[in-house]
Amino acid sequence: MGQSSLLGLGCVGLKVEILLFGIENPMDVMEFFQLSTGTWRSQRTTHHLAFKRTEAGESAIRVEAFAADHPQVIEICQLHEVDPALAIGGAFVSWNGAMSWDRNDDENHEGSTVFALIPDADHPRQGILLRERGYAEIVPIAGQYHMDDENGLVLTTEYETMSSIERFWFASPSLRMRTSTVKRFGGFSTATFCTEMRVADAIASAVESVPETAVEPTQYFSVLGC
Amino acid sequence: MGQSSLLGLGCVGLKVEILLFGIENPMDVMEFFQLSTGTWRSQRTTHHLAFKRTEAGESAIRVEAFAADHPQVIEICQLHEVDPALAIGGAFVSWNGAMSWDRNDDENHEGSTVFALIPDADHPRQGILLRERGYAEIVPIAGQYHMDDENGLVLTTEYETMSSIERFWFASPSLRMRTSTVKRFGGFSTATFCTEMRVADAIASAVESVPETAVEPTQYFSVLGC
Repeated sequence: MGQSSLLGLGCVGLKVEILLFGIENPMDVMEFFQLSTGTWRSQRTTHHLAFKRTEAGESAIRVEAFAADHPQVIEICQLHEVDPALAIGGAFVSWNGAMSWDRNDDENHEGSTVFALIPDADHPRQGILLRERGYAEIVPIAGQYHMDDENGLVLTTEYETMSSIERFWFASPSLRMRTSTVKRFGGFSTATFCTEMRVADAIASAVESVPETAVEPTQYFSVLGC
Repeated sequence: MGQSSLLGLGCVGLKVEILLFGIENPMDVMEFFQLSTGTWRSQRTTHHLAFKRTEAGESAIRVEAFAADHPQVIEICQLHEVDPALAIGGAFVSWNGAMSWDRNDDENHEGSTVFALIPDADHPRQGILLRERGYAEIVPIAGQYHMDDENGLVLTTEYETMSSIERFWFASPSLRMRTSTVKRFGGFSTATFCTEMRVADAIASAVESVPETAVEPTQYFSVLGC
């Protein structure tokens, strides 16, 4: 079997698909959030690395992309003392879900966040993401983002006592995935994986509450919902 | 708070770390496998997308990088009728672990694989990965790989009735991560996330068997162990 028959195994079709989603069709960050608009059912797993334990959860996540001139985008820029004219847009994200931890307690997690996106002047596929609040902190939080060569959105955020690196990508227009790692005091504490399927609003509102949580409640919430 | 104070939040340090692992220090695929050499404890979660169920597991994984002139690399090239002089090396990977599914049955998973790496002549960070066998298939299997701009190894493999896309990356030299998605009959069936911590051999051999499996045994095994 030579090189040509290896290609005949069918690798080429998938490669083309990757390229369509990647470097041959580079997406900017607002295209990413526009593709994210709608309601998603998120299936989530957190690996607590030190404890070698796994925590599972489900949530419904709603994403709305905001144009650059949306009043809430302007407001967040002003909060951070950044010229609103530099923003290319933003998004509103809300979530409603539950996490499981030992299946012996219950706690619902819901919340929302708004953010604005400020691309670098010379590198339009990267920049700063300004949030209204940093969840674990009271002060406004800014993270650094870039779109990678597979059209993944990579977001790095430093808080006072922790930092996170998240990567979001589309396996298909209706399947979004993410991984995130959180460092506390310089060491990795958790790694989380979410698979998110696009759903109709009616179905999303019927997401069952999974019994559960919180020996150690997860203090960290992602920019794309929890 | 202006742009300079945003940088003062500490984003820069993490950004530098990402760049060290990424585009400013691009890794080739053999460097990836050399960094992977050793024994790892893998914490694994599979999301069965249609069933909205989560399957957990643990394994010990051992990786050994092979030089281009290793007899097993040459043998695999010959099996695929590819000139062994084109190979830049390969690896031997073995694993021993267990997956849980409803915690009402037991099944151990162990196995090993050997593969050879053939870079593209004009794009040395991408190429073809030749395997001795494709796990689910009897015929020799070839996948396409590339190193992405964050030094992630992306591997795409098509089988007769399924295809997989895997991405492996290092969060640190002793924490390797991976995601993989499997498509069957054109639709996504599973998404898997593994966090893999480097361990001493003595510790790895003591990995406890997690009670286990298999209403629907996972037919798909990754190139970097199961």
